Amino acid sequence: MASDQFNPSFNSLEHFHSTAGKHSIFEDEIRKLPIPVCSVFVSQEGRIAPAVFKETDMIFQCEDHGRTSKEFTRSIEKSKDIVLQAFPGKSAPRIDGKRVAVLFSGGPAAGGHNVLAGLKAVLGRDGTLLGIRKGPKGLINGDLFEINSEQIRAIINTGGFDFLGTDRTKVKTAEQFAKVKATAVNNKLDGLIIIGGDDSNTNAAYIAEYFLREGVDCSVVGIPKTIDGDMAVGKYLPISFGFDTATKVYSELVGNLTQDAASAVKYYHFVKLMGRTASKITLEVALQTKPAITLISEEIAEKHMSLESVVEYVADIIAKRRLKGINHGVVLVPEGLIEFIPEMKSLIQELNHVLAEYERDIKDLPTLKNKQEYIYPLLTPQSAQLMASLPDDIEEMLILDRDDHGNVKVSQIETEKLLIEKIRYRMSQLKRHTHRFFGDGEGKIEATDRQIEQFKAASFSTQSHFLGYEGRSAKPTAFDAAFTFNLGLAAGSLVLQGKTGYMASVTDFDKGGRVLALPISGLIACETRKGREELVIAKDLVNTSSPAFKVFAKNRDKWAMDDLFSSPGPIQHWGPTSRQMPISVALNQGYTGYQSFDLGEERVVGVD
Amino acid sequence: MASDQFNPSFNSLEHFHSTAGKHSIFEDEIRKLPIPVCSVFVSQEGRIAPAVFKETDMIFQCEDHGRTSKEFTRSIEKSKDIVLQAFPGKSAPRIDGKRVAVLFSGGPAAGGHNVLAGLKAVLGRDGTLLGIRKGPKGLINGDLFEINSEQIRAIINTGGFDFLGTDRTKVKTAEQFAKVKATAVNNKLDGLIIIGGDDSNTNAAYIAEYFLREGVDCSVVGIPKTIDGDMAVGKYLPISFGFDTATKVYSELVGNLTQDAASAVKYYHFVKLMGRTASKITLEVALQTKPAITLISEEIAEKHMSLESVVEYVADIIAKRRLKGINHGVVLVPEGLIEFIPEMKSLIQELNHVLAEYERDIKDLPTLKNKQEYIYPLLTPQSAQLMASLPDDIEEMLILDRDDHGNVKVSQIETEKLLIEKIRYRMSQLKRHTHRFFGDGEGKIEATDRQIEQFKAASFSTQSHFLGYEGRSAKPTAFDAAFTFNLGLAAGSLVLQGKTGYMASVTDFDKGGRVLALPISGLIACETRKGREELVIAKDLVNTSSPAFKVFAKNRDKWAMDDLFSSPGPIQHWGPTSRQMPISVALNQGYTGYQSFDLGEERVVGVD
Repeated sequence: MASDQFNPSFNSLEHFHSTAGKHSIFEDEIRKLPIPVCSVFVSQEGRIAPAVFKETDMIFQCEDHGRTSKEFTRSIEKSKDIVLQAFPGKSAPRIDGKRVAVLFSGGPAAGGHNVLAGLKAVLGRDGTLLGIRKGPKGLINGDLFEINSEQIRAIINTGGFDFLGTDRTKVKTAEQFAKVKATAVNNKLDGLIIIGGDDSNTNAAYIAEYFLREGVDCSVVGIPKTIDGDMAVGKYLPISFGFDTATKVYSELVGNLTQDAASAVKYYHFVKLMGRTASKITLEVALQTKPAITLISEEIAEKHMSLESVVEYVADIIAKRRLKGINHGVVLVPEGLIEFIPEMKSLIQELNHVLAEYERDIKDLPTLKNKQEYIYPLLTPQSAQLMASLPDDIEEMLILDRDDHGNVKVSQIETEKLLIEKIRYRMSQLKRHTHRFFGDGEGKIEATDRQIEQFKAASFSTQSHFLGYEGRSAKPTAFDAAFTFNLGLAAGSLVLQGKTGYMASVTDFDKGGRVLALPISGLIACETRKGREELVIAKDLVNTSSPAFKVFAKNRDKWAMDDLFSSPGPIQHWGPTSRQMPISVALNQGYTGYQSFDLGEERVVGVD
Repeated sequence: MASDQFNPSFNSLEHFHSTAGKHSIFEDEIRKLPIPVCSVFVSQEGRIAPAVFKETDMIFQCEDHGRTSKEFTRSIEKSKDIVLQAFPGKSAPRIDGKRVAVLFSGGPAAGGHNVLAGLKAVLGRDGTLLGIRKGPKGLINGDLFEINSEQIRAIINTGGFDFLGTDRTKVKTAEQFAKVKATAVNNKLDGLIIIGGDDSNTNAAYIAEYFLREGVDCSVVGIPKTIDGDMAVGKYLPISFGFDTATKVYSELVGNLTQDAASAVKYYHFVKLMGRTASKITLEVALQTKPAITLISEEIAEKHMSLESVVEYVADIIAKRRLKGINHGVVLVPEGLIEFIPEMKSLIQELNHVLAEYERDIKDLPTLKNKQEYIYPLLTPQSAQLMASLPDDIEEMLILDRDDHGNVKVSQIETEKLLIEKIRYRMSQLKRHTHRFFGDGEGKIEATDRQIEQFKAASFSTQSHFLGYEGRSAKPTAFDAAFTFNLGLAAGSLVLQGKTGYMASVTDFDKGGRVLALPISGLIACETRKGREELVIAKDLVNTSSPAFKVFAKNRDKWAMDDLFSSPGPIQHWGPTSRQMPISVALNQGYTGYQSFDLGEERVVGVD
């Protein structure tokens, strides 16, 4: 039996203690990994050096040009909304002593720390990199500190945003803008780097414009971050950072679940995947893992599918698989699904309206039943019927839970459980009324009597999962590590050149990387949010005529009818499979493969 | 913008199609990975060959020797409950043409397919390996097929049990035993390998005894499988297969969540970890990731902690962290917790009793309220008070949901959500009655007025997770891949030598591996299950005086008061971090490190 004696001289103990605080064997090894550097950032002497950005012939003409040109007059005057491209900076004078501050905004995404490493590397020994604590809040409050090389060595290639922290504050009021100005002036900032998603980059554009107006000589540059993958601009920005890592974490787990389903031969695993709006994560995970069933919100909206027809679609596949003797599988559900089902969207809009209009009356009613009696007559019959068909707890949630703006908390709806309950009903319909659903005739499923008996004998067992937080702060994949380091080099180069209001970008992942700067004002469109029009960077949703969607659509019926799943495995940082990029990105960009990216020659980026 | 043209000649497309059915880039590469082979299985000519088992001086004397010797008379007569050890089989006559069948039983665990590869390798060209479909059910029904080398090449190093499938049927009735005999006789089996957990290996012992009694000349050998880690026998069997892979998958994710918590700086992630009984998974994950708070069921039972005191323990740490300005973290909760809290165990026992006694009466009562009114007076005051203090949905579940035996479905209780709700109440108590909990005096938490104000301003936001299915069917770690292949070689060698009623084992992971055969009858103890006594292999729970627990206990206060988390990262199959073994196993076995295992020289195990 194992020794009961506690042996303090135990050898691995000493090593064990030294692993606390992000020093596992793995964590210490990944810090040593080399990172590819795009050739524009390599000087003739072979050292990392700032690139120089030049105008291209590409101009962004956004749809609401009239409105954006009013809001971003000075930025557009300077940039003319022309895309810039980076070239090796041999002719550039050496720029020393610049002070640049950086912050994280919004949810974490893998690679954020490498953006800092890239910035530090390009600013050089005489430049100063300042970290802003806890996101925009820290920018407003002036909570900054100088980042030294030792700190960069500690965070390089690590995941998360924990070195600085993050938050979701938006700089909106005049008072907030004034405080941001004070932070820039007090800290003598030459540059401010905002690492964030669509809202944060929009905010960056507003701050850039404000600084120009106020005569604050500080460049503002955005870095495209979001695991959701909906911050992308065709050939100009194939993807934001963090998407590759997050989707690979989810694909590892979905891959494991597909294998587990086929092993235990009794469960359907319903997996909800993070992504409030776009289904890009779900599409990528589907391409990676080839599960039995995948729902894509954008397609469902486009086809005007009802909740019932979505349920029927899934139940139909489950039924057909069962007839083939397969009573297990994986169903992928995008987090944002509910709002893409047109009738659900209508119901939620009506509810928001009714609950706002009659807020006090409804609040005063003592029981849920009273509230229901009050609300139902105020809905359209279609919405009333739909709401009555939802599971109790979801109906209760719709009526009782409000967000800060008084709206239904759509993101809290457990979509995967809603689907499971509805599909369970549908499966028992199929079981009890086999003559209606099986046999000859239009819309009926072909089946022999024996198959029908087997069908009825089988049970519908499910497990539900939500994958999200697990993928935001993983160690970046080799791709995300390289992508972010080069984004940092690009952003630093832009600041050194005095460029403002741009978002850094890298494209051409298949041939060494092309480094661009996108004028943010050119990306901004008008969006209706909570009834008000707002100027924001438009989200890049799944396009059902894109190559990635078409490859998925062409294959899904095969994946539905057989176990053809596969798995990219856990993210590898060494070995033959470690340099992959997202399949959907490779397909949409027209690369010749996704097996290996090329963002320049690898370098051990020791920061001096 | 991305091309809207669907380009069918797209190059990666062809590769993409070839990845369906477990042929991702990763899956094809891991099949080529070499596997370490213990030296006892390597012949003088350097080929894989059966080992020969010899008696050691180790005898298992189980506690219920009287009972087991009655049940397993013939097995014990043969084995004398002596542990066997493997030696190189140079003196053994070449044994050809043996027929061996193998099945998976119970939940999947990583490495099962490599047991098959090991069996196939050791049986040699003239031996026949038969696969039994869908576990013990297939054994009873005689659902067998011959496994060829091509199939082994396809499944080697892959995860899951999907090649054969599995189920949880137990061979119990005389009719079932007779059918198993028929399967053995009809298929001319010389050996039957049962890959499973404590119940399945117990079943293997019963079948072995039955075959001896019936004169069926077929060896029965068990293989220790369970991700839970509670199938272990001190120095004789350090761990079962699948534990390393599962805990590393969970540790990757918990590591990501600790990093995410520190990045988003607003959430406590409550992570429930699979393991119905033992907290071994939770302990290993805690050692790997060093989260703020970890609950270990065995310790809670030993200390006779109440639910309220568990809640206070967690809330107290959260409060103290908040006073230090840390309002985020990760809490690990073992799945089996509820039944280890003595008062909860009593409540459940009382409920099971009451619900059995008054089944009809309670069933006839129309509403939940009626049932409550009926049941409460029948409980002890302590249990009544406890039940009334539980969240509604959990109380409802306890009263309404029954398993097939009429018992409370303990495994369905969402422990992590129960804890969250109770801790939320406790946090608001602390907030509203600060004078009672903070300041000078016994049991009070020291805090300045300013700290108390900050404490009150902070909110308690949570996310809950359950990690289980994701880790059962992952690709085996290098350790599990090696461990299982050698277990397969061991089991095959035992059959070739005509040994029956043994479980194959490998120990000494730090120095080349020692291969043992453990007489199962010697491991069996008496356990009370659902009121009846049963002979089963005793579960190996967390021992609070074991080195692994002590190292955890010594460090947890430090982990609670600072962010000292770390992460083993995703499982690596290449590179410098790929050969680790479980920390808890290394500690308990007294190895000098966990950084690297040694199970012999690596070989590319092409099966000919």
